[in-house]
Amino acid sequence: MPPVIALIGKPDSGKTTLLEKLLPELHRRGYHIGTIKHHVHAFEMDKPGKDTWRHKQAGASTVALSSPTGLGIIRDVDKDLSIDELVGRYYGDTDLVITEGYKRLGLPKIEVFRSALHAEPLPNRDDTWVAMVSDTTPPGDLPCFGLDDVVDLADFLETRFIKSFPRQKTSLLVNGQPVYLNSFVESFLRQAITGMTCSLKGCEDPQEIIITIRQAPSE
Amino acid sequence: MPPVIALIGKPDSGKTTLLEKLLPELHRRGYHIGTIKHHVHAFEMDKPGKDTWRHKQAGASTVALSSPTGLGIIRDVDKDLSIDELVGRYYGDTDLVITEGYKRLGLPKIEVFRSALHAEPLPNRDDTWVAMVSDTTPPGDLPCFGLDDVVDLADFLETRFIKSFPRQKTSLLVNGQPVYLNSFVESFLRQAITGMTCSLKGCEDPQEIIITIRQAPSE
Repeated sequence: MPPVIALIGKPDSGKTTLLEKLLPELHRRGYHIGTIKHHVHAFEMDKPGKDTWRHKQAGASTVALSSPTGLGIIRDVDKDLSIDELVGRYYGDTDLVITEGYKRLGLPKIEVFRSALHAEPLPNRDDTWVAMVSDTTPPGDLPCFGLDDVVDLADFLETRFIKSFPRQKTSLLVNGQPVYLNSFVESFLRQAITGMTCSLKGCEDPQEIIITIRQAPSE
Repeated sequence: MPPVIALIGKPDSGKTTLLEKLLPELHRRGYHIGTIKHHVHAFEMDKPGKDTWRHKQAGASTVALSSPTGLGIIRDVDKDLSIDELVGRYYGDTDLVITEGYKRLGLPKIEVFRSALHAEPLPNRDDTWVAMVSDTTPPGDLPCFGLDDVVDLADFLETRFIKSFPRQKTSLLVNGQPVYLNSFVESFLRQAITGMTCSLKGCEDPQEIIITIRQAPSE
């Protein structure tokens, strides 16, 4: 699983605007960055009138639009997926995931604070805050970056998160929740499963193995 | 993996319109139906100006919008994903997947043919065609359903595909391609992996297990 950080801040503090400057800088450095936005209201992502939109409206539970350059998937869920489940399922090939919002979770947090708009930063700052991005120097001794200072912020993310998280080769999700594997268990599982898999026809060189097991409802 | 059928037909023959009538009927019967639409042109699914759209424009490789009722994911790919990979990765919890198009693949096919619009059905009909949906009785001895006859068509799909495909408990994707598991191998893999997993802390009752193994690039 890639590292995950939360970009937080009061309404209109400029989280998306900052991301619009930061993402090209990280992309230029060759990283694959994922983003996750939370939405509490009725879901809307597709374009009304498009075929996939019509399929979804008519009752499809999962619709996809697939092209040679992009893939879009829209699906029903019966509850908010946890960040762990989202990242474990869909972000395995990214180097860093940045969420917009999700400030109540224990993720490492970077707060955007614009003194031109708000008198104070967010209350209840705790030790999950790792940096501030601001038009002023907010109280406290966290690293602080200017609103346009995305090169230094990218350096910080690169050093502190992207390069310091060794990418585990094996991820295990059980009932939607990621399971921590120490290096012994990781190696044991990986080698046992790779050994079983590569003895199957056509699987001699397994660069990526994904196994999904669902117990039947009657069991 | 769920069964997959392709809904095909000449341009404007009414594939999406048929789906708009068929999907509610299948939904009413309690099935989770997935759809896949292929798109050869520049990808467009999100709404311009939305935060996720701005993230993607700025260079994020995967963006998600997550809510308590729906999940949307838009991501870069470097080539067309195969139907097997799409269905294996994203449609594990559906009962049937219907593609719009993909007529060149060996999928079972249902052709929509409107004689009011086209003089002839598609050429090169072969034994992957399983039914016709039409405003007339096309030549040949395939089952044929009227354009509004979605109850009978749903019966056909239910009998021929949904109920006759035993849902395998274990799916294996190697290098993006699904691997056929006979019942001995399926049971062996499932029981070995379930046994290893349920001995880990917090994994005592694994209803769903997803394991992803990626070999490091240097190996």
